[in-house]
Amino acid sequence: MTQNIYDTETFFTAYSRLPRSTEGLDGAPEWPALQALLPDLDGRTVLDLGCGFGWFCRWARHNGAASVLGVDVSDRMLARAKAETDDPAIHYTRADLEHFALSPATFDLAYSSLAFHYIEDLQRLLASVHAALLPGGTLIFSVEHPICTAPTHPEWTIDAGHATWPVNQYLDEGPRTTNWLAPGVIKQHRTIATYVNLLLRTGFTLSHVDEWALSEAQIGAHPEWADERHRPSFLLVRCGR
Amino acid sequence: MTQNIYDTETFFTAYSRLPRSTEGLDGAPEWPALQALLPDLDGRTVLDLGCGFGWFCRWARHNGAASVLGVDVSDRMLARAKAETDDPAIHYTRADLEHFALSPATFDLAYSSLAFHYIEDLQRLLASVHAALLPGGTLIFSVEHPICTAPTHPEWTIDAGHATWPVNQYLDEGPRTTNWLAPGVIKQHRTIATYVNLLLRTGFTLSHVDEWALSEAQIGAHPEWADERHRPSFLLVRCGR
Repeated sequence: MTQNIYDTETFFTAYSRLPRSTEGLDGAPEWPALQALLPDLDGRTVLDLGCGFGWFCRWARHNGAASVLGVDVSDRMLARAKAETDDPAIHYTRADLEHFALSPATFDLAYSSLAFHYIEDLQRLLASVHAALLPGGTLIFSVEHPICTAPTHPEWTIDAGHATWPVNQYLDEGPRTTNWLAPGVIKQHRTIATYVNLLLRTGFTLSHVDEWALSEAQIGAHPEWADERHRPSFLLVRCGR
Repeated sequence: MTQNIYDTETFFTAYSRLPRSTEGLDGAPEWPALQALLPDLDGRTVLDLGCGFGWFCRWARHNGAASVLGVDVSDRMLARAKAETDDPAIHYTRADLEHFALSPATFDLAYSSLAFHYIEDLQRLLASVHAALLPGGTLIFSVEHPICTAPTHPEWTIDAGHATWPVNQYLDEGPRTTNWLAPGVIKQHRTIATYVNLLLRTGFTLSHVDEWALSEAQIGAHPEWADERHRPSFLLVRCGR
C-alpha cells in the first residue's frame, strides 16, 4: 500500500495550515494554470483522484458538474471533506489509488492534483483511469516536477554566485524520501519521458504539458520566492481518451 | 540568420574530430535510441534537416529509402557530404533552416539530429515540416536536453558530496552562449513543455519522448563518463502528421 502520510498527526497538522488547505483552490498558486486546462464541466461526471479536503469536488459542482466522485486514502481528509458539504451529487470514497477499481466508461473528466507522485504502480492506475473515462473524456493532473524530485539533496544552493537547483540521479527512477512537513515522506520520482510514454502507451492522446513555475507577477507579490523561477515546480498534463 | 558556427575554422576542425564525425552514426552514443524510433524506410522519401556530413542520408539510402534530401547551412559540411557519395537519389541543399521553404506533402520521414536547438523561430520551421510531410508521415528529432541548456554556468559541480548539474533559469527561454568546441556558440534554450506544445499546436501527434542519457553499459565501457547518468543529455521526440 502507498504510504498514507496524510493521516499522521505531524503531517496532517502542518498540511492543514498550508494556504491550499485554508484558502482552497485560490491558495494553490498553480490553480489558475490547472483551471485553464479544464473543459466545460456543465452536466459532466467528474472523478477527483486524491481529493483531499474536497475543494475541487465542490468547485466542480459549483461550476455545473452533474456529479463528482472524490477518492482519497486519508480518513482525516475525507472526514473534513464530508463535513464541508451536504451536496448529494458529491460522493466520497476512501481508497488506496494503488488498488482502487473504477467503473468503466463512467467519467467525462478525471482530475488529480499532486497525488500521482505518491503512486508506485502508475501504469495500473492510468489504465484504470483510461477505462473509467467515457470516449472523448479528459484526464488532467499535476505532479511534482521531476527536476524537483530527482536530487539526492533537494535544496537550493549557490554555484558561481547563482542560485541553482542541484539536479542529479534524474534517470534513476523510484522512491525519494524527503522531509516535507514531516520526516520520511516518500514520493516516486519519474522522468517526464516516463509520464508521457506511460500515457501514450495506455492509449491517451497528449494535448498539453505545462512545466509550471510561479509567474513573474506572483513573485512580484512575494520577492522571497524569487528562486522559484529557476526551475519548474510542477508538471501539469492534459490528455484525452 | 542563425549563427553558422560550423563554418568557422576552429569549430569545424574540432567538430570534424568528434567520434560522430569520424565514425558516423555509430560514433554517436544516442544513435541506437534514435534508430529505435525510426519507421521502416523501404521506398520512403526522407528529409534530413541539419544533415552535416550526410551520414544519416547515406544510411537511409542503404536501408531502402527511395530518395533523401539533406539540408544544411554549412558549406564545408555539405562539401564533404557531397564528396562522400555519388548516389543520384541523395540530394543536398545549402539553406538556413530559419527560412528554408519545403515542398508540401513530399516526405514520409523528416529527421533532424541536434539541429533544432540552433533555430530561433522553431514554430515556423515545425509548421513547414508538418506541411512537407505526407499524411501519416513522421518527424523524429533530437535536441540538447533543456536541463543541459538552461544553466547560467553549465558545468558539473559538487553539492554535499554528490556530483550535481546546477539548474537555473530553466523557465527563461532564449539564447545561451557556450564555449563548446569554439567560443561563443549560441543555442536556443526551450523547455520540454515548449517543444511538446509547439508540436501539438502545429498539428503533430506525439508518439514517443526519450530523455536520453548514456546507458549503464555505455558508462561501464567509459567510467570517466559516470556523471552523465545524473541528467539527460538529449531530448528525442517522435511524432506523426
